[in-house]
Amino acid sequence: MPRFFAEENNISENSIHITGSDARHISYSLRMKKGERITFCREGTEYLCTITDITETDVYCHIDETLPSDCEPDVRLTIYQALPKSDKMELIIQKTVELGAFRIVPFISKRCVSRPDDKSAAKKQLRWQRIAEEAAKQSGRGIIPRVSPILSFEDMLKELEQNKKKLICYENGGISLTEADISDKCSDIAVVIGAEGGFERAEVDKASEKGAVPIWLGKRILRCETCPIAVTSVIMSMTGNF
Amino acid sequence: MPRFFAEENNISENSIHITGSDARHISYSLRMKKGERITFCREGTEYLCTITDITETDVYCHIDETLPSDCEPDVRLTIYQALPKSDKMELIIQKTVELGAFRIVPFISKRCVSRPDDKSAAKKQLRWQRIAEEAAKQSGRGIIPRVSPILSFEDMLKELEQNKKKLICYENGGISLTEADISDKCSDIAVVIGAEGGFERAEVDKASEKGAVPIWLGKRILRCETCPIAVTSVIMSMTGNF
Repeated sequence: MPRFFAEENNISENSIHITGSDARHISYSLRMKKGERITFCREGTEYLCTITDITETDVYCHIDETLPSDCEPDVRLTIYQALPKSDKMELIIQKTVELGAFRIVPFISKRCVSRPDDKSAAKKQLRWQRIAEEAAKQSGRGIIPRVSPILSFEDMLKELEQNKKKLICYENGGISLTEADISDKCSDIAVVIGAEGGFERAEVDKASEKGAVPIWLGKRILRCETCPIAVTSVIMSMTGNF
Repeated sequence: MPRFFAEENNISENSIHITGSDARHISYSLRMKKGERITFCREGTEYLCTITDITETDVYCHIDETLPSDCEPDVRLTIYQALPKSDKMELIIQKTVELGAFRIVPFISKRCVSRPDDKSAAKKQLRWQRIAEEAAKQSGRGIIPRVSPILSFEDMLKELEQNKKKLICYENGGISLTEADISDKCSDIAVVIGAEGGFERAEVDKASEKGAVPIWLGKRILRCETCPIAVTSVIMSMTGNF
């Protein structure tokens, strides 16, 4: 059954009304007809619907059934990602969303080469959010993970503190992910990951002061975009979500 | 210390002689000089060397020390990957090599859209092998993982049989990776992974007859290139290699 995300203002008590690009996609690209079934998701809830009326600009549906989404992991994993060069952030967002990340927070660390100005950063965030939405749709997520605005290292640390379980990937040493005491279904986990060249010692120390445990991913040197994908995979597996 | 791979014919008892593009890279791009130290790897052995003479075409080194490479995982993981569309195989090879895969075997399954002719397949294999070599160098592997020629499904099954532990990813159900009894340091593991659209039931049945255990990666639908990256990450973690 085709699957789309709905916004709060699309949903009434018994019906859903879709307009814009999704309506065009449903009517024109998928050529769906009155009477056919379609699913909408919003923040962890699935609305199983039947199309009651459809034009190229408007799709009206009756809500047949409302269910909690069963595709969401039971762990909220936030990826704090130092901004890598070129378009690597796009791959990171697409893959970590598919694999179940809850939120992605880009930030600037000492060794970041990419330092977009405000205008460029705002444009990037819009693009990244679209990539997260596409990946969420494609992989059948129950939510659209949010990509936050780019934070400074200091602001990232402040945010990080709010998470229960905090990890930071550090190539100069730490415990392995399997030793990191996250198999007991932590409700929320945050992982801080570096850009090319990783973190400076002082940055890792600051994160440690906020309670982040340094994680070492072994002797092979992973490209910076490989690390968040691998870490998300392993954490989803360790918490029984894979 | 810069790190390169050497071939058997480069290595004598006490010395290593490098020519070709690596020699040019060492002399011209890295501007290395006589007396500087460099490491060469060959099949799990590291040769710690000092440059004794260097021109743009020839690099002569003295072997100071020979060590077993400590960057190789202690599990030999072979990825049997049904050929995906466009250039996705390149990302799969780059990432699985970084993460520690031992060998990659592309094959053609029923739902493969990409079916290169012999000439194109040979060209692809060369390109893939180059990508494996680059990824091995970059990540500090002790070996260059081999990318095999593209096999038919039947030939893939024959090869698969030789592996001790065999898994096949199947989106219609199976056990989870963590239930797959691979944490006891299996010496070799093979994972069969589908292209876009996954496998037909009959294909999974045939692989099961050869001893492959169906693995289910959960309710989120992973893009076909995400699956081998995630599976390699999790297996490396489960076997203590991450």
